[in-house]
Amino acid sequence: MKVGVFDSGIGGLTVVKSLLKHKLFEEIIYFGDTARVPYGSKDKNTIVRYGIEAVEFFKNFDIDLIIVACNTVSAYALEEMRENASCPVIGVVEAGVLATANAVSKKSSNIFIIGTKATINSKAYEHGLKNLGYNCLSTKATPLFVPLVEEEIFEGAILNAALEHYFKDVTTPDALILGCTHFPLLEKQISKYFENRTMLIHSGDAIVEYLKEKFTLQEKFEEPELKFFASENPESLRKTAQKWLYDK
Amino acid sequence: MKVGVFDSGIGGLTVVKSLLKHKLFEEIIYFGDTARVPYGSKDKNTIVRYGIEAVEFFKNFDIDLIIVACNTVSAYALEEMRENASCPVIGVVEAGVLATANAVSKKSSNIFIIGTKATINSKAYEHGLKNLGYNCLSTKATPLFVPLVEEEIFEGAILNAALEHYFKDVTTPDALILGCTHFPLLEKQISKYFENRTMLIHSGDAIVEYLKEKFTLQEKFEEPELKFFASENPESLRKTAQKWLYDK
Repeated sequence: MKVGVFDSGIGGLTVVKSLLKHKLFEEIIYFGDTARVPYGSKDKNTIVRYGIEAVEFFKNFDIDLIIVACNTVSAYALEEMRENASCPVIGVVEAGVLATANAVSKKSSNIFIIGTKATINSKAYEHGLKNLGYNCLSTKATPLFVPLVEEEIFEGAILNAALEHYFKDVTTPDALILGCTHFPLLEKQISKYFENRTMLIHSGDAIVEYLKEKFTLQEKFEEPELKFFASENPESLRKTAQKWLYDK
Repeated sequence: MKVGVFDSGIGGLTVVKSLLKHKLFEEIIYFGDTARVPYGSKDKNTIVRYGIEAVEFFKNFDIDLIIVACNTVSAYALEEMRENASCPVIGVVEAGVLATANAVSKKSSNIFIIGTKATINSKAYEHGLKNLGYNCLSTKATPLFVPLVEEEIFEGAILNAALEHYFKDVTTPDALILGCTHFPLLEKQISKYFENRTMLIHSGDAIVEYLKEKFTLQEKFEEPELKFFASENPESLRKTAQKWLYDK
């Protein structure tokens, strides 16, 4: 089975990492729209247009499934992408909602969602969870976490100050949805901020759970073929992939 | 006299603020390429293409001069923009070089330049200053300052940690070039970090100085007409303009 993974930039590599770990595909084709990243501050029409262009890009390959690794695109453009695609298109938001529902069964659980401004404004996670009967939801846009990850600041004073800036008034949640593919790289420090008492929902692991549940995929591809494409500076994307996927 | 001010996003408003203060133009047309910001991490070919597109945009108006308020574009695309324009095109880099030379006469002065990765990698300020005989130059890319300004974090713990992160090994410079139009909004805190012993070179004031010196412009337009255009979300640009230009 051959999968296309789409992201606005490099963040979706955290999803690829989960796919690799769980050996679900024999070939993974990654496309990062690095020329137009970030999407998180763009408006809906633009995000939809970029999403449809990604569907067209994947038509160059004979793929069986498209995974939208970008939360912002998943929140705004999934329907339009499906209309244009000739294979299933799944997104990290629906996967994250399912993973959250599987993880915290008590419907009174206190769930906290963080993401880019666009993802948070879309209320996509909230709608998904409310449909399942979850009501104790709070959200916060944490846009600074994106450049921190891109600068490879995964710990230290700046990150600690940013955590305090965003979370100082937040009651320790039962579950926290990392609603941006960059955020799993800050997982340890976010978890530590909440004294390791919060269950973190990671888009990559959520997608794996979703694929196993909805597509009954099995762990069987030991050495999948990986192909990376970027709309700008593919060498830089490949270098980051090497570092994120294999070095840590 | 009618001027077009081009920036990759909102940062160039700091240049508009200086133009307003000094009353140099009767009409200012601002274009921010907010749909494709940030340019600071893009490659030269892309930046040149966007610069030429901006020149084409300004052909819709009968303007006398284009000011490139974006340091990254000034560093990479000025020549190509000039080839395509039918009016003079000036950039903040050449203006900043002139302002620095006017400010610190001793050629042994220790000059420190900060900017986006693309601006710093271009070495545009260094080349300009070396041509004038300045040799004691050091540079640092400080990309986190951009999202901090966009999040309106102008002081406090995160900014202090970021200042320490970038400047902890830097000897107090005689002059510091704020090589990105976002940075003047952090002027106070940057100055304070170096115990107010460093002369800061601000692109907006540098452009004013340049225009007075090279174009012999005079301060005479009390109430210039202002027009704002953005490639995405112009309302947001206008709101920021209102805040940055008039509220502080």
